[in-house]
Amino acid sequence: MKCTDNGIHEECGVFGVYGVPDAARITYYGLHSLQHRGQEGCGIVAWDGRRLNCIKGEGLVTEVFNTDKIAALKGTMAMGHVRYSTTGGNCIENVQPFVFHHKTGDFALAHNGNLVNSAALRRYLESKGSIFQTTSDSEILAHLIRKDSREGHLPRIKAIKEALNMLEGAFAFIIMTENRIYSCRDKYGLRPLSLGRLGDGYVISSETCAIEAVGGEFIRDIEPGEIVCVDHHGIRSNRYSDFGHHLMCAMEYIYFARPDSDIEGCNVHNFRKLSGRLLYEEAPVEADIVVGVPDSSLSAANGYAEAAGIPNEMGLVKNKYIARTFIQPSQEQRENGVMMKLSAVRSIVGGKRVVLVDDSVVRGTTSKRIVKMLRRAGATEVHLRIASPQLVSPCFYGVDISTKEELFCASRTLDQVRKELDVDSVHFLSKESLFKAGKRSEFCLACFTGEYPTDLYDEEESL
Amino acid sequence: MKCTDNGIHEECGVFGVYGVPDAARITYYGLHSLQHRGQEGCGIVAWDGRRLNCIKGEGLVTEVFNTDKIAALKGTMAMGHVRYSTTGGNCIENVQPFVFHHKTGDFALAHNGNLVNSAALRRYLESKGSIFQTTSDSEILAHLIRKDSREGHLPRIKAIKEALNMLEGAFAFIIMTENRIYSCRDKYGLRPLSLGRLGDGYVISSETCAIEAVGGEFIRDIEPGEIVCVDHHGIRSNRYSDFGHHLMCAMEYIYFARPDSDIEGCNVHNFRKLSGRLLYEEAPVEADIVVGVPDSSLSAANGYAEAAGIPNEMGLVKNKYIARTFIQPSQEQRENGVMMKLSAVRSIVGGKRVVLVDDSVVRGTTSKRIVKMLRRAGATEVHLRIASPQLVSPCFYGVDISTKEELFCASRTLDQVRKELDVDSVHFLSKESLFKAGKRSEFCLACFTGEYPTDLYDEEESL
Amino acid sequence: MKCTDNGIHEECGVFGVYGVPDAARITYYGLHSLQHRGQEGCGIVAWDGRRLNCIKGEGLVTEVFNTDKIAALKGTMAMGHVRYSTTGGNCIENVQPFVFHHKTGDFALAHNGNLVNSAALRRYLESKGSIFQTTSDSEILAHLIRKDSREGHLPRIKAIKEALNMLEGAFAFIIMTENRIYSCRDKYGLRPLSLGRLGDGYVISSETCAIEAVGGEFIRDIEPGEIVCVDHHGIRSNRYSDFGHHLMCAMEYIYFARPDSDIEGCNVHNFRKLSGRLLYEEAPVEADIVVGVPDSSLSAANGYAEAAGIPNEMGLVKNKYIARTFIQPSQEQRENGVMMKLSAVRSIVGGKRVVLVDDSVVRGTTSKRIVKMLRRAGATEVHLRIASPQLVSPCFYGVDISTKEELFCASRTLDQVRKELDVDSVHFLSKESLFKAGKRSEFCLACFTGEYPTDLYDEEESL
Amino acid sequence: MKCTDNGIHEECGVFGVYGVPDAARITYYGLHSLQHRGQEGCGIVAWDGRRLNCIKGEGLVTEVFNTDKIAALKGTMAMGHVRYSTTGGNCIENVQPFVFHHKTGDFALAHNGNLVNSAALRRYLESKGSIFQTTSDSEILAHLIRKDSREGHLPRIKAIKEALNMLEGAFAFIIMTENRIYSCRDKYGLRPLSLGRLGDGYVISSETCAIEAVGGEFIRDIEPGEIVCVDHHGIRSNRYSDFGHHLMCAMEYIYFARPDSDIEGCNVHNFRKLSGRLLYEEAPVEADIVVGVPDSSLSAANGYAEAAGIPNEMGLVKNKYIARTFIQPSQEQRENGVMMKLSAVRSIVGGKRVVLVDDSVVRGTTSKRIVKMLRRAGATEVHLRIASPQLVSPCFYGVDISTKEELFCASRTLDQVRKELDVDSVHFLSKESLFKAGKRSEFCLACFTGEYPTDLYDEEESL
Repeated sequence: MKCTDNGIHEECGVFGVYGVPDAARITYYGLHSLQHRGQEGCGIVAWDGRRLNCIKGEGLVTEVFNTDKIAALKGTMAMGHVRYSTTGGNCIENVQPFVFHHKTGDFALAHNGNLVNSAALRRYLESKGSIFQTTSDSEILAHLIRKDSREGHLPRIKAIKEALNMLEGAFAFIIMTENRIYSCRDKYGLRPLSLGRLGDGYVISSETCAIEAVGGEFIRDIEPGEIVCVDHHGIRSNRYSDFGHHLMCAMEYIYFARPDSDIEGCNVHNFRKLSGRLLYEEAPVEADIVVGVPDSSLSAANGYAEAAGIPNEMGLVKNKYIARTFIQPSQEQRENGVMMKLSAVRSIVGGKRVVLVDDSVVRGTTSKRIVKMLRRAGATEVHLRIASPQLVSPCFYGVDISTKEELFCASRTLDQVRKELDVDSVHFLSKESLFKAGKRSEFCLACFTGEYPTDLYDEEESL
Repeated sequence: MKCTDNGIHEECGVFGVYGVPDAARITYYGLHSLQHRGQEGCGIVAWDGRRLNCIKGEGLVTEVFNTDKIAALKGTMAMGHVRYSTTGGNCIENVQPFVFHHKTGDFALAHNGNLVNSAALRRYLESKGSIFQTTSDSEILAHLIRKDSREGHLPRIKAIKEALNMLEGAFAFIIMTENRIYSCRDKYGLRPLSLGRLGDGYVISSETCAIEAVGGEFIRDIEPGEIVCVDHHGIRSNRYSDFGHHLMCAMEYIYFARPDSDIEGCNVHNFRKLSGRLLYEEAPVEADIVVGVPDSSLSAANGYAEAAGIPNEMGLVKNKYIARTFIQPSQEQRENGVMMKLSAVRSIVGGKRVVLVDDSVVRGTTSKRIVKMLRRAGATEVHLRIASPQLVSPCFYGVDISTKEELFCASRTLDQVRKELDVDSVHFLSKESLFKAGKRSEFCLACFTGEYPTDLYDEEESL
Repeated sequence: MKCTDNGIHEECGVFGVYGVPDAARITYYGLHSLQHRGQEGCGIVAWDGRRLNCIKGEGLVTEVFNTDKIAALKGTMAMGHVRYSTTGGNCIENVQPFVFHHKTGDFALAHNGNLVNSAALRRYLESKGSIFQTTSDSEILAHLIRKDSREGHLPRIKAIKEALNMLEGAFAFIIMTENRIYSCRDKYGLRPLSLGRLGDGYVISSETCAIEAVGGEFIRDIEPGEIVCVDHHGIRSNRYSDFGHHLMCAMEYIYFARPDSDIEGCNVHNFRKLSGRLLYEEAPVEADIVVGVPDSSLSAANGYAEAAGIPNEMGLVKNKYIARTFIQPSQEQRENGVMMKLSAVRSIVGGKRVVLVDDSVVRGTTSKRIVKMLRRAGATEVHLRIASPQLVSPCFYGVDISTKEELFCASRTLDQVRKELDVDSVHFLSKESLFKAGKRSEFCLACFTGEYPTDLYDEEESL
Repeated sequence: MKCTDNGIHEECGVFGVYGVPDAARITYYGLHSLQHRGQEGCGIVAWDGRRLNCIKGEGLVTEVFNTDKIAALKGTMAMGHVRYSTTGGNCIENVQPFVFHHKTGDFALAHNGNLVNSAALRRYLESKGSIFQTTSDSEILAHLIRKDSREGHLPRIKAIKEALNMLEGAFAFIIMTENRIYSCRDKYGLRPLSLGRLGDGYVISSETCAIEAVGGEFIRDIEPGEIVCVDHHGIRSNRYSDFGHHLMCAMEYIYFARPDSDIEGCNVHNFRKLSGRLLYEEAPVEADIVVGVPDSSLSAANGYAEAAGIPNEMGLVKNKYIARTFIQPSQEQRENGVMMKLSAVRSIVGGKRVVLVDDSVVRGTTSKRIVKMLRRAGATEVHLRIASPQLVSPCFYGVDISTKEELFCASRTLDQVRKELDVDSVHFLSKESLFKAGKRSEFCLACFTGEYPTDLYDEEESL
């Protein structure tokens, strides 16, 4: 579980293409549309009819790939991955997709999510002779699949099914062999994965926005516990589990996903806007303007403003050119007011009673800073409205949220939160409204409730 | 006059700092906040007490500079430039600031705008012995200043005044010598330039957003026809012309400037939002949702929606990760629907009557593409509302707008526009509403009217 | 077996350091001194007391590493690898060292050489459940070592011994665990590996030149069939085989190794110089000057000239700045005489009878080109003297020599060689003289004789 | 006058091509062959029939240019420059060629050498209104040429002649206009410049090695005081001065030039070899082997050894992969014997009496280090033989030699030199032998004698 300054981070996005010319180039566009799910590394693997060719590197899709590299990845079947974090010196090994060579055929694999029993599985596999070349959970599945093929000769789909049944946790996997692509989701349905049609072929993506962006047509979501196999026969569905819940991570709607994606039938912008309306209904306040924190809270702010009938204004502006290579202001410069990422706009908020809408409060530092900026720019009142419940528990399913100790709301009463953030009032959206906004009865709300849908093997061990 | 696919481009942004520690680093932050005014090249020059050191290059501020380079630019006085276009092979020479070496002292110079009598001035200066090392207008001012110092020994401020009086056109110049910074605007007031306080020193910037971003405090705009000199005596104002108009480029408000900037007392977001309200008043329509083209039209869309009382929705989503190194989709891929920069959101616009708000129509290609995207995504009606009048004439003052032949509206009636763009109705904001939105009585509206506030020497020659 | 234009290439160099401050930096210097053994990729892994950190990339040591990267590789134990070839898109995976994660401890591994039974071993290991992530031979050893640890708990040294006994072919391996470094050579002694002292610690290197370069002191060569273990106990020797031959690759002396290296007690420059003297004794000729092909043939030319008593002249000059990014002359430019790598010097060879000394003839193309250059520059006679026998068979032990079909001498009589190369006389050094020059009774001369010291399992399979 | 660690550096090399397809590519090859004359920056300018296009940058020719950049420089006329030093932050401006824009036509200019009256000329030109954008001497010529064109309309050749007559010092200039190339040398003949034929066109180069390398044929040297104009009429010669001396810089032969170049009729390798023979005649010594310092002293060592009849051995080996980005060993590492650039070879020099041949002694540091290395490697005696006289005076003609204070021999008797360098004997070649080796009666020997062939205006001023 890694932590960063800003609080929450999704781990990855996956994308695959079958039966389409220039598959690697389409994958490049797909990954570009999933770039918000991971900016630290990316890779594409393509099948050229003879072998799997893979190129990967650290940085954005536009930094890792150029025309020559994409052209080198020939073929009509490809898959790729964008990754949030690369840690330590040993980084490039952990960038996906992984390629495995085996006499029964080479295969590649990419993963979004996090397993909760990886330590136990590693121990088991090593006792059977496996050696690992990465510290990534994702390598485990490859070993599990191959484990089975030693003992007699299981058909591959059976081997994958048995392997998936040993995994516990959150995952969306894409597996590519020399003639087909398998896509599967964990049986809880914690991570999204969708299927689309593209020309005469198919496309699989963590989010529907990438299917649209490459000109494809959404068919349906992969079901929890399902394996979808795409090859020259078309689409075939298999189930490795009938558990059958749809405990989609609520944070996908609240924060991660692109507003133009639909997740399990519900559009993300619509979800956010409706959550903003509900936020107003739960906690109206007399004010002059509504200001959303760009970019992820703009829809909720819009919803709040429309429900409240007060203007939604651009009181905070975000610099579009923030890059990894940006030279951060020194502490002293920060204290002198150098604000590079966000600016509060004096002529908009000055003298105004402001409803500040944000999607969540993680460590509290960003919220404090924004409130301070607004007050410095002349806001007379600041009413904070958060479009999600209080974050009180860490996530073990692939969301890089802070530890319990660092979660601002975990150890504070609502009144303490209000005082420390220096706001005139504060309200967090209720869980009930999340269900209403999503028009659904199930969610994984573990980070808001501490109730985890799965066992937490590895965590329990480490206690 | 250069043209690009997308239509309109500002040429540059300038920024200067006097009397502040780590002046180059502050300039780096300032330029970063002006990055929207030019992404092709940038440079910073700083005075280290002994000499002017200059580093410049092609690309974004975060690409050209790193910690080492900023650290190499020591001193408490610095200035910089971001530039829109670098053309041809001879590019790096045209990146500003320019540094000039002379026995009367070295000086540096950066420029935003475009002269209309540069050809005549070049001829004149060459006849006096000047040689030019760039094709940039900005080099001319340096030669004009030095020309005078040959004939007797004019005080420098007099030399600058005489030189400025020979320039015709649009400009905001920053000139840095070894002990002071001069800032000046053309007498028509075509380009913005503002002055702020920062700690014990001063800051000059094309837009106020950069003054705010570095923690400075806005003092006032530089006046048309004014030269402001900043040095250890503080601020001194000089006038080289009493022409005294405020013919600010309307496009600064409509399109170029950051929404958090104030230009001549009016906030840009407020201008745009009000223009949206006026747009509704001029051309209301029965519809289900309002959709703005991100990012520059979001404020106007917001204003329209609020005035109309219909929801403002995120029906178009922009990919935040578009970079210069992006591999463009092929024509065929485009036709197959690969849309990388913008996506229309089916679940938002599907089955809806849409008011599409955009800031301007240049060549028409982008508008056509967006309308097509919306219809493909299921919009039943598309009513186009443009928050500015029809563009009919090229700009000679530093805006990289298309030629008259390429301006879509220049040769079409409103009805032709509607038909070719395939929209159900179309309306362009009136000039009157621009003045109302800006709460001012003067503007340069040459691109909307063809009436130029200056003579067009070079253009007339080329006829 | 890969082939390149120029004919012969060594595959790799390995280097390791134990018990020395800044071990990664020392490894950087060591690899830099072994750079002639591989320019396509390199990597360093260091143990920081807690974990193995590894950085690797494509290109020269000076291209892949910078101060920050070396500083990130903390610790007093490190090892590295330079690699000749990276093929296909899947390249970065094949760059060494490889790092393996296992419950019994992580370990790293680097390899110089080539196995002849890798196909069989892969099949065997895969049948036991292994999956491979590279196409490199070197990964096999890791799996073999781990294989044993499954069945009961073998002490690690025993596991390594058993694993090495299964390998057939040429190798020099360095294996690093969290507290020691193992170094081993194949039982035939085909590839060199030497041990040195450095401060209070130890250094292992493919060539002695790197031991000298880092300020170390040569102790002795690792013996064929030996495993040397270096840790806090000091040096311990183990044998996994008593085969006990010293069939060192003759090409190491003739071409690959740096002239300042000593291999099994014989200095490389001295070997080459003596081979030049013997070449004269075998085939004297009346001539004006001796010209060696730079750089590898200069010692032999020197020996020939001294023995002959005629001047050794710099009739061919090599451009020192040839880089991977060099834009190659087009075929037409080549025919027009554009010669970038080598130049013949008209004022030196003009009107002269030249003895041209080269180390070997592979495909014949380079020799033809050089002779043509000399004649064009005015040489009246060209007598070719080659300081090795005719190359007639491919190498399966890690030397990237051409296939039999491409070996110029394999299918031509001496007289055909003379005619096709357009020389006045030609002579190849006898095998006997190689033994004399090396003052030794054993060599691997397989590429000159077609008699291979090992079985050729994989090759026989592919027949 | 800049100083570096290693002592001596040539400033530049120039190369031009007229009337040849792909002129920029040919220039790329030419500059690559002149790379030894400057590694810090380079540039190429080509005339595409309409305008001069110029690309330049910091680093080697292979680093600054790639296929795309060379392809962008279209046309049959081009010229380029390699440059030794770039100082300060303001560097890219000083990289040549310079391009100047003027109503009488654009032109480009590249320069090898150094003027001694540049300060006076700058003052004069500034008083006439010039402004300088670089601190390079080379910009002065452009201003001088244009100065004349103001006053009446001088034919261009006359303007160039008059301008050249105002320059004092060392220079080889190439000037390119839209239809011809002018090449000129200073009237003392201090810097080399040669003319060759290439296909139907012409080539001009600082050294003949580049003419040969591009497949050209040497015609003749440009004469001191001559201007050669190459255009569609062919070659025309003009003289701007009849001073008529051939005071070629002796250091060109001794150190700078490539051994395969001919300078004023004498081959550089031959010069060096003969100087080695003469060195033996002047100072024979009983010894076992001769060792030359690579690369520049190998010819002289060869000559010494042949004259002495003792073996010439490779007792010092140079690493071929030294790059600008190399991480230098720390002082402590150096003291522990880390030697990256040069290695002494124990098995060659151990137990031997060594004659060490070097080309020159500048600061003495390198010599000390080499002697120490040889002794550490077991040499029993070291006799130093320098193939040039003692360096005692700085150069003002473009050679970046140390100041008088730093010149080791300037303030030491021969015996002090011997003791401080810790050698058993030492000898410097006499001036007479330099003339013999060059078979000529004139040289500029200012750095050996302190007698400068020109006035030293700027230097005298600064006293």
